[in-house]
Amino acid sequence: MSASPYKQLEQEFKRLHAFRGALALLRWDAAVMMPRGSADVRGEQLAALETEHHALLTAPRIIRLLDRAQANTQGLADWQIANLREMRRQRDHAIATPATLVSRLTKAASRAEARWLEARAQGKFEAFSPYLEEVVHLVRDKATLLGQALNLAPYDALVDEFSPGLTTADIDLMFKALSRRLPVLIREAISTQEARPLLPLNGNFPAAKQRALAVEVMKAVGFPFDRGRLDESEHPFTEGVPGDIRVTTRFDGADVFTGLLGALHETGHAMYDLGLPQEWRDQPVGRDRGMALEESQSLLIEMMVCRSRPFVQYVMPLLGRHFGVSGPEWEVENLYGHLTRVQRGLIRVDADELTYPLHIMLRYELEKQLLSGELAVRDLAEAWNAGMEQRLGIRPSNDSEGCLQDIHWAVGSFGYFPSYALGAVIAAQLYESLRAELPALDEQLSRGEFSGLFGWLRTHVHALGAKVPVQELLKDATGKALSAASFVRYVEAKYLETTASSAAA
Amino acid sequence: MSASPYKQLEQEFKRLHAFRGALALLRWDAAVMMPRGSADVRGEQLAALETEHHALLTAPRIIRLLDRAQANTQGLADWQIANLREMRRQRDHAIATPATLVSRLTKAASRAEARWLEARAQGKFEAFSPYLEEVVHLVRDKATLLGQALNLAPYDALVDEFSPGLTTADIDLMFKALSRRLPVLIREAISTQEARPLLPLNGNFPAAKQRALAVEVMKAVGFPFDRGRLDESEHPFTEGVPGDIRVTTRFDGADVFTGLLGALHETGHAMYDLGLPQEWRDQPVGRDRGMALEESQSLLIEMMVCRSRPFVQYVMPLLGRHFGVSGPEWEVENLYGHLTRVQRGLIRVDADELTYPLHIMLRYELEKQLLSGELAVRDLAEAWNAGMEQRLGIRPSNDSEGCLQDIHWAVGSFGYFPSYALGAVIAAQLYESLRAELPALDEQLSRGEFSGLFGWLRTHVHALGAKVPVQELLKDATGKALSAASFVRYVEAKYLETTASSAAA
Repeated sequence: MSASPYKQLEQEFKRLHAFRGALALLRWDAAVMMPRGSADVRGEQLAALETEHHALLTAPRIIRLLDRAQANTQGLADWQIANLREMRRQRDHAIATPATLVSRLTKAASRAEARWLEARAQGKFEAFSPYLEEVVHLVRDKATLLGQALNLAPYDALVDEFSPGLTTADIDLMFKALSRRLPVLIREAISTQEARPLLPLNGNFPAAKQRALAVEVMKAVGFPFDRGRLDESEHPFTEGVPGDIRVTTRFDGADVFTGLLGALHETGHAMYDLGLPQEWRDQPVGRDRGMALEESQSLLIEMMVCRSRPFVQYVMPLLGRHFGVSGPEWEVENLYGHLTRVQRGLIRVDADELTYPLHIMLRYELEKQLLSGELAVRDLAEAWNAGMEQRLGIRPSNDSEGCLQDIHWAVGSFGYFPSYALGAVIAAQLYESLRAELPALDEQLSRGEFSGLFGWLRTHVHALGAKVPVQELLKDATGKALSAASFVRYVEAKYLETTASSAAA
Repeated sequence: MSASPYKQLEQEFKRLHAFRGALALLRWDAAVMMPRGSADVRGEQLAALETEHHALLTAPRIIRLLDRAQANTQGLADWQIANLREMRRQRDHAIATPATLVSRLTKAASRAEARWLEARAQGKFEAFSPYLEEVVHLVRDKATLLGQALNLAPYDALVDEFSPGLTTADIDLMFKALSRRLPVLIREAISTQEARPLLPLNGNFPAAKQRALAVEVMKAVGFPFDRGRLDESEHPFTEGVPGDIRVTTRFDGADVFTGLLGALHETGHAMYDLGLPQEWRDQPVGRDRGMALEESQSLLIEMMVCRSRPFVQYVMPLLGRHFGVSGPEWEVENLYGHLTRVQRGLIRVDADELTYPLHIMLRYELEKQLLSGELAVRDLAEAWNAGMEQRLGIRPSNDSEGCLQDIHWAVGSFGYFPSYALGAVIAAQLYESLRAELPALDEQLSRGEFSGLFGWLRTHVHALGAKVPVQELLKDATGKALSAASFVRYVEAKYLETTASSAAA
């Protein structure tokens, strides 16, 4: 007797999971280990594996099995029924975009990326504009086809690729609440912090020592070094699969915190991936629930946990031990002040948690306008600069610190940016609930104890994999639908406190 | 108009080449970078990619295209006709062994490898014997099927997998010549060197400094670090594809030479791979011409070039610079004496070039007897010990230094061992010719100049890829068929010199 359609599908997707793991390793190696001159070779390997992965996923056999399995789900567990849904989702996404369009987009993006690097170096958008235009055209075609197949508006179809189950409606609601409150809050926070000037954290912090500190903190957090690695790369990222997870950061010898916080941000992603249900780990339902939730896990650790007084109390003596530093500037309040400094800046990746959502709102509006045709690509730089001035009151002096700062659009990633802001809002909502349920949390964190924190996250987020939609997960975990209310409460409490001691643990 | 059958095949094999490159990276990472606990995940990735590679290579479409392309080769270049032959060779090898047998062998080998590790730790063959027996049975089936498909004797079919075009007849002829001369030569060499005692090379040689030395010498040799890496692993190896080649070695803090020589042995492999014809690099005809020729390139560098006085003259001042060593023991003659010391030992990988072939002869005879059934697996340990006593006059005190020392048989590699001895013999034959044509070679090597050496090897070996059989390549390069005569002349000159100064450059 042959295996049931469902069991056959599990086998097929187990194989696809192995392909995804191999692809992840090829990408990790390219960013961390690969010799400079080998990019052409790696490009061919990635293309061959991706093509094969696509062919296996869209083979007629898969859809036949899916139809048979979904016609009779008797005897299947809940998670297996959810698994069928996720299998179909992956397959529908893959088949909606014809191979020729995928290939044209890949090539256009590859050309645009090279031109973007040049244009960014020169600070001039103009020469890059026609290449971006080609990408925008192809992404528009893709969004239309994807939208038809998934019965979604074109832009929502793109969002659905990254953050399934979240739509423009959710995003608009969130941004409406944030734009009402953030501009005032930023002004107030800056004036509050001006009343308490900080001592500078000068020094030379060798990469090897920063690494040792990061490893010590990651071990305390629970990162399993027998199932993962920490390396260095130009930009921090997390790659791999649960069972072999690779985290990177970048150490700046003049800055004691960026390398550590980069590593801890990525450790947040890694802990999510490592907490995914073990028994489903090679199945679609065993994957993370999209980029918004991924980002919520990294931001919750980096922004909410690690930029808190209890965490600073834990890490302060480690700084002394690893770097031999001491003096008033290395006391808890001064360190905490540095970690929570608000500043109107031009660069997204350097932004604090108060101004960050404004950077995202600008990109969200512009990318929707680019796709709808409302904004011509050639007018992007000016629209960007005007938007920055309007939202943050500052204007880029050249396009490198304007519309050329991010790689996303050059490589065809439209619909991705909102997940950063959604992640922050989801993180705040989860954090509010978990703090209410774990009254000893601050005390634990100040001792470098993270098991309570991750115990909660594992139960309410990680262990669910992709079994339920984000909205349902949030409702179950926090009792509320997605809303920016927790985030607003969180930043108000954090950035408008009038005396430093009021929140000390 | 669709592409010609030949062009379609080129596309298919380009894709297979990309798969092979991805597999190579996954193996490299497993040995060099992967966290300890991730072997299960990696095993699944390797299996998925290997299965897919096998399916693509044996698909009906490939054989149809091959038949059509070979029926009409008009307009094809020589190398393209050779490419068709190599494509068919790969495909015939792949299809000769049914997937079920491959899978059974993979599993049996995986079990046997685990038991081999245990048995080696305990020094006892007995507990491992039944697992090896299972592997031997399956390899025997494979050899029979492969032999039928390739019209070769079963053992020759296994040899053909590793060293195409070489057979038992070639190997027997070589070993006959070597057994006639080597035992006497070993005795004479040992008595010659006993008359010239060596000063010990004591010291502590930190891995980081050994690495810096190895990198300096590899750069001088011509290893392109923008297209390759040097790392550390338990056993030295070379992985990857031309365009991204990964070399490893192992540094022993108490030994100044093993790490360097390991790196240079592997650099010999890498230079071969890097010298393969650029335009054919993703095609079967652009691959190396089998393991015997591969091994000839690594041995030529490690044994003939790097264990020579001119090379020692070049490297001696580098030792002083990297390790701060000086004194009479660090003079050329004493260093050269260490690098050419002959010793009857039990362990193959530690053997010098005079005793090494005897280690291989023993394995060659035993593995043929195991496959034919003439020797029962359970009697292997005793046969091994008797063989060692007969050939080298020494007897293992336990099986770890006897028949358990190599991993090859446990993982099903039968027919591989002869390539080590063939490699040494081919290397000597090539070296004799290239020395005759490059009278300035020693003088160049003593200055750390390797371009003359590699210029010759590139023209006569590397640039041919897999276009011609080994025998033809040798004939063209040296004017002679494969024979042990050059090797015997080479070792006689090197190990029986009566005064040290006679061969000094």
